[in-house]
Amino acid sequence: MIKNDILLRALQGQEVERPPVWLMRQAGRILPQYRSLRASLSGFKELVMTPSLAAEVTLQPVDELGVDAAILFSDILVIPEAMGLGYEMEERKGPSFPKVVENADDVANLLEGNAAALHLDYVYEAVKLTKKSLAGRVPLIGFSGAPWTLMAYMTEGGGSKTFSKAKKFLYTQPELAHQLLDKLTNTIISYLNLKIEAGVDAVQLFDSWAGVLSPEQYREFSFPYIKKICDNVQGVPKIVFAKDGWFALTEMAYLDCQAIGLDWTVNPHLGREWVGPKKVLQGNLDPCALYAPAPKIRQVTEQMILDFKSKHIVNLGHGLYPDTPLSNVKCFVDSVKSFCY
Amino acid sequence: MIKNDILLRALQGQEVERPPVWLMRQAGRILPQYRSLRASLSGFKELVMTPSLAAEVTLQPVDELGVDAAILFSDILVIPEAMGLGYEMEERKGPSFPKVVENADDVANLLEGNAAALHLDYVYEAVKLTKKSLAGRVPLIGFSGAPWTLMAYMTEGGGSKTFSKAKKFLYTQPELAHQLLDKLTNTIISYLNLKIEAGVDAVQLFDSWAGVLSPEQYREFSFPYIKKICDNVQGVPKIVFAKDGWFALTEMAYLDCQAIGLDWTVNPHLGREWVGPKKVLQGNLDPCALYAPAPKIRQVTEQMILDFKSKHIVNLGHGLYPDTPLSNVKCFVDSVKSFCY
Repeated sequence: MIKNDILLRALQGQEVERPPVWLMRQAGRILPQYRSLRASLSGFKELVMTPSLAAEVTLQPVDELGVDAAILFSDILVIPEAMGLGYEMEERKGPSFPKVVENADDVANLLEGNAAALHLDYVYEAVKLTKKSLAGRVPLIGFSGAPWTLMAYMTEGGGSKTFSKAKKFLYTQPELAHQLLDKLTNTIISYLNLKIEAGVDAVQLFDSWAGVLSPEQYREFSFPYIKKICDNVQGVPKIVFAKDGWFALTEMAYLDCQAIGLDWTVNPHLGREWVGPKKVLQGNLDPCALYAPAPKIRQVTEQMILDFKSKHIVNLGHGLYPDTPLSNVKCFVDSVKSFCY
Repeated sequence: MIKNDILLRALQGQEVERPPVWLMRQAGRILPQYRSLRASLSGFKELVMTPSLAAEVTLQPVDELGVDAAILFSDILVIPEAMGLGYEMEERKGPSFPKVVENADDVANLLEGNAAALHLDYVYEAVKLTKKSLAGRVPLIGFSGAPWTLMAYMTEGGGSKTFSKAKKFLYTQPELAHQLLDKLTNTIISYLNLKIEAGVDAVQLFDSWAGVLSPEQYREFSFPYIKKICDNVQGVPKIVFAKDGWFALTEMAYLDCQAIGLDWTVNPHLGREWVGPKKVLQGNLDPCALYAPAPKIRQVTEQMILDFKSKHIVNLGHGLYPDTPLSNVKCFVDSVKSFCY
């Protein structure tokens, strides 16, 4: 039994007294307890790969911010690593792959499905520990990167403004791209199902780099794989978030998922028009709005809730930026929790 | 008199035999003659600030690619520099500002209008030299960054995926942001009018970072300034391109300009629906499509022309990426020039 189950009730399409609230990247640098734990460690990956530490960090925002959900502290790049392509995470520089996927051999060498996902025992263990520590206070969300977004990093070699190398792969080796996306998809399905078995109460799929694709490319190289994942992961509510993927929202309405995430470029009315009446919408305050003074934060948060009207989970339109003042994040969460429909 | 005036006829809304074609960043690293000239110089800014060299580079793609327009080789950051905020351009790292705009004094210290624009004599001189060298072969386009995009660099200090510092400025110092945007706007108006006086045949405004703003912020901090520029720059056709600014297209239909640029996330039918029937649309092939083999380039280029139907100027949806093979760029241009409506 979960005591504060407002997120799960909202995801089931029930009417709720106020919208639930959680924040992408709520466990992280905005919290002093995170920064002090992180400073005592060798690196980011130690945190991700040590179940007790991942669980500890996952709980910090539940204690500190009073959000309506925990989201397991991890990284989307654990999947490529489990498939055989290790990543590195450097402070302030972001993720990188010392070796990238370039040709048919590179794709052939990757593990897939359960054979890959079973390498991620530390994640399932972290889920179990977190569930125990949470003791039913709030639900626990597990996440995965979407196939295109993971492929983007694996072929580009790291972050990029344009992901032109990754997109070049799509234009010059489309069949190989499909093979890679297929392997990623099978691995993500196994991974999410194992996370559900370990105890997560909901899952979210992040297609963080949807927005660098054209609508046609998205239709060919991203959407079908997300659909396959949604079709093959069952038992808990699913949230799909394609950042900057406004052009795909009308199609995403047909996914077997309960909620669709929106970034801040999509106004709530338009988002509802495009997604239709059935799904819950999640989002979508500009993370930079949390730099504003408290009265402004309250005003834009309440306006957003009014604009979405109902079937809404409050979140940002992107992960929290690490230099956001903690008091401002609290003001945001409190504004939602004191709201009454 | 301009011999190949197909771009100007298209911008006037006339029916043309095929769409005109030019490419954003057509003068640059994709051309061997550019790379060899560039290698002989101390840096990028020497090229920008030496009229004879800027003119030479501007003509290279006209000779090599046979495009229907030249666009004066320059940089959007010459405007902040003329206002008193110098920029640096480092190879592979992009632009940066050693000093950024942070407070009221920083804004007060900036020159504006003619007082700033008159510092850009080297640009007007480059226009005159280029017009002479072109000898009426094709029209010459002059460009400027839009106020928000320039402000983004001046407050962020350089390129960024999120422009979170620049957006923080909007949320925390909105009045000061408006003062800065106003000064930028007045300078851009003077600058474009001086370019027109010097001889450019058309102008394009680049709002490269439109897409990091929410629709509400765009409406407050970008659109009104672009409108003021369009209203106060007369005598030649105007093109406005707000990269990732899909959410503003219905409003941009009301600007006093002849053409609106689209990036590749906006499908041509939707772009036409949003902008309405009156304006010419410019764009919008994904620059990464030029990594594809020649038959694929021809196919997607022709499909794009068919999708736009008419009132269309062919271009990419962003600047050419520097590692695009020259033969592929030629294939793109030739595909357009051999097309017949």
